[in-house]
Amino acid sequence: MEKAKQHFLDIFFNPNNIAVVGATKNPQKMNFHLVRNLVNLKFPGRIYPVNPNADEILGLKAYPSLESIEDDVDLVVTAVPAVATMGVIEDCVRKAVKGVVIVSGGFSEIGWEGRGVQDEMHRLLRERGIRAVGPNSLSPINTSNNLAIGFGPIERLKRGGVSFIFQSGLYNPRLDWIFSEFNLGISKLADLGNKMDINEVDTLEYLAEDPDTKVIAMHLESVAGDGKRLMQLIEDTTREKPVVVIKSGRTPAGAEAASSHTGAMMGASDAVFDVMLRQSGAIRAQGLEEFFDFAKAFDFFPPLRGNRIAVAALSGGEGVIATDWCCREGLSIAKMSPETVDKLQAVSPPWGIPSNPFDLGVSMQFHPMDEVLKVFFESMADDPNVDCIALQLEMIGTLLLAGIDEFPSLLSILREKGKPFTIWMVGRNPQERELVEKLESNHIPVYTSSERAAKAFSALYRYNIMQRGASKSKGKQMR
Amino acid sequence: MEKAKQHFLDIFFNPNNIAVVGATKNPQKMNFHLVRNLVNLKFPGRIYPVNPNADEILGLKAYPSLESIEDDVDLVVTAVPAVATMGVIEDCVRKAVKGVVIVSGGFSEIGWEGRGVQDEMHRLLRERGIRAVGPNSLSPINTSNNLAIGFGPIERLKRGGVSFIFQSGLYNPRLDWIFSEFNLGISKLADLGNKMDINEVDTLEYLAEDPDTKVIAMHLESVAGDGKRLMQLIEDTTREKPVVVIKSGRTPAGAEAASSHTGAMMGASDAVFDVMLRQSGAIRAQGLEEFFDFAKAFDFFPPLRGNRIAVAALSGGEGVIATDWCCREGLSIAKMSPETVDKLQAVSPPWGIPSNPFDLGVSMQFHPMDEVLKVFFESMADDPNVDCIALQLEMIGTLLLAGIDEFPSLLSILREKGKPFTIWMVGRNPQERELVEKLESNHIPVYTSSERAAKAFSALYRYNIMQRGASKSKGKQMR
Repeated sequence: MEKAKQHFLDIFFNPNNIAVVGATKNPQKMNFHLVRNLVNLKFPGRIYPVNPNADEILGLKAYPSLESIEDDVDLVVTAVPAVATMGVIEDCVRKAVKGVVIVSGGFSEIGWEGRGVQDEMHRLLRERGIRAVGPNSLSPINTSNNLAIGFGPIERLKRGGVSFIFQSGLYNPRLDWIFSEFNLGISKLADLGNKMDINEVDTLEYLAEDPDTKVIAMHLESVAGDGKRLMQLIEDTTREKPVVVIKSGRTPAGAEAASSHTGAMMGASDAVFDVMLRQSGAIRAQGLEEFFDFAKAFDFFPPLRGNRIAVAALSGGEGVIATDWCCREGLSIAKMSPETVDKLQAVSPPWGIPSNPFDLGVSMQFHPMDEVLKVFFESMADDPNVDCIALQLEMIGTLLLAGIDEFPSLLSILREKGKPFTIWMVGRNPQERELVEKLESNHIPVYTSSERAAKAFSALYRYNIMQRGASKSKGKQMR
Repeated sequence: MEKAKQHFLDIFFNPNNIAVVGATKNPQKMNFHLVRNLVNLKFPGRIYPVNPNADEILGLKAYPSLESIEDDVDLVVTAVPAVATMGVIEDCVRKAVKGVVIVSGGFSEIGWEGRGVQDEMHRLLRERGIRAVGPNSLSPINTSNNLAIGFGPIERLKRGGVSFIFQSGLYNPRLDWIFSEFNLGISKLADLGNKMDINEVDTLEYLAEDPDTKVIAMHLESVAGDGKRLMQLIEDTTREKPVVVIKSGRTPAGAEAASSHTGAMMGASDAVFDVMLRQSGAIRAQGLEEFFDFAKAFDFFPPLRGNRIAVAALSGGEGVIATDWCCREGLSIAKMSPETVDKLQAVSPPWGIPSNPFDLGVSMQFHPMDEVLKVFFESMADDPNVDCIALQLEMIGTLLLAGIDEFPSLLSILREKGKPFTIWMVGRNPQERELVEKLESNHIPVYTSSERAAKAFSALYRYNIMQRGASKSKGKQMR
């Protein structure tokens, strides 16, 4: 490896201290939360609020300007109005800070006047070797050191294996949902905004080498860096880690909206981009629900070695619908081994021959629920014809709460065999939320429909095929 | 109208009394809930539990057999094992009951032996003019008289404009979710199971004429009745009421699963069925989430007269994604009138020109949230170029709770103009659930993504086009 020891993006994720320009005491202002979140989440480095009209903000000494800070400054986060931003950049240059995040908007996304100012800021910083994220960016998050820049209160962070690259603050209002309801943990997150300096290629390069990052999930409105380099980098990265991509601005109206959002111009058509992405081995998500679903799937599931799925539903009708989705998504309905059929016979109705999809509902009319589930899990864990399992819970989720502590132990049977297992269940009443949280804290993802579960497995399977293809056709290449 | 005054299905939805054969005192058994739900929900007619081993069940006198009931019996619900069902049918014939719901499974869905018994049951009942729903059916529900047959506890019903036809009990474990979380009200529901006698044509015919049914949502695994008649009936019905259809068993494996579920055989290929359905004016849902989403959309929204949509999101990036979905679903991003642009200018950032999608997030950095929303709603309500509106709430949903009572009043501006309006918002924490419930009780549907919102509007728009096309090309025809 010829890589320098410290990547230039490291200063954004692991700064020793942070200065927040535009900090405020006024809790009605969004900027209030920039400092408040760092304090509340206990970011361990020094925090320097900069505001000429305050002496103290949230118990921290406030500084009238960057220059008045006595120490060297690693990272500046600036969130003053667009017209005042150039002055801050000049201060950054004088102070010789190491990195700048420009939160403020009103630059290249508003047209040529804004682009001119943005170009000038970039020139000033580049001359001094100061790297910048943004403008129009809410960045970064690093859960390993409780660093989180965001508008609105961030009450908690949750560590996990997924790192995100965004080209928008769209994650910000969903952050609490990601951690608390979706039960997904994050390692690092960067919103690149207008990508004046640091772009998706830089960030992907950094995350590809980041040992805490197991899965990379990337939102793109445009490709600001070298497109060929990006695709090559994705191809190299996917040998080790899955890369999930959502690309928006794919329709003409969407592309127009993107250009007035981050000043992004997309060269290639969406169809061309789609082919390139597919060839690179990235897993493309069609929508935001899929984007997060896939990220969770790659983080939670063990690798999926085949596409033969076993399905168990609470009704025959739901099993049929699940089967349709599995087939449409390229999965194959497993032909259960004779041993499995025998075992399931014991928990089937007197007149029933066990089949895949398995009808849990009818079995539960004749046998105790916990027995049905136990036999189902054990036989599926042992069946060499079954690669993965999807099971529906609904109302019984609630009933199960009585014996819920046993349920994860049932599932450990499957985990020992390394078989990916998922549950679908639409309800999220308070008891069901509790169940979902327990399951997901055991790394069993819970989707709201068989459709979403099948799509998640399909993404996993496509990644597995691609990885095997890559290792077969190319072997392990040096980069 | 040459119709007889009372349709033969009326006895299933409006019986004066119900006998439940296979009733039990044992709360561990699913059958327990058949009687318990009728009692708890306060079904106003007499309930006759039938069980030779009990004198009393849930405070009701129990009868050893149907024949021992002193009165005439309107509706029999039988849920005894398959082998004992023929005996119950013979009792029904002797007792000359008016209708039978066969809950038990184990008939045509298990193969030729089961089909033989089913055919014989049908012959016996038909000879006496007794109509039957099932076997393998959890039916019916009628919220207007608190009639609900279901396994598992049903704690509440919620009245509404949607009537469902199912070919599975798949709704049953979701019932609480439908009422309590999805906030959808139901008028009537029938699960037709194996469709030995009463089929989808009969049921659609009944619901088409039912004044309490505003929307019909139909789940099919097979067409048991006359296919041409079904399509003609859908075509006639959709002139007055939307018909949403989910057809499963559309892949080979799915079709196989369907045949072992309800003994269903689908003649035409899915592609042929799809074309026929489209020509009939039905709105086809791809998955269960869509099925329920569309049902809610048709129940909640006023008619959609055009496809020009205004979008407001909490971030530029989310607005781009929403725009993509709208375009992909055949909606058109509205070109706002100059008056609207002027009004929105007042709540935009100093450097921003208001556009569609509108960036709420950036506006809220410069203006108070309630002011931004008020101006947005008022200008959209008045803009003749805007047919419908989709708006994102997330975290601000929580913030809004402070002033939530004002929010619906803001929205009444839109309702007065008859413009369909929806919100998308992924979170469902307790505060957000409260907000969603308030919105939906005001008939503002809340979807978890812009994708689902766009698809719902698209379904509405397709229905509108189809209706206009039908009235233009055919005029109002006599049937």
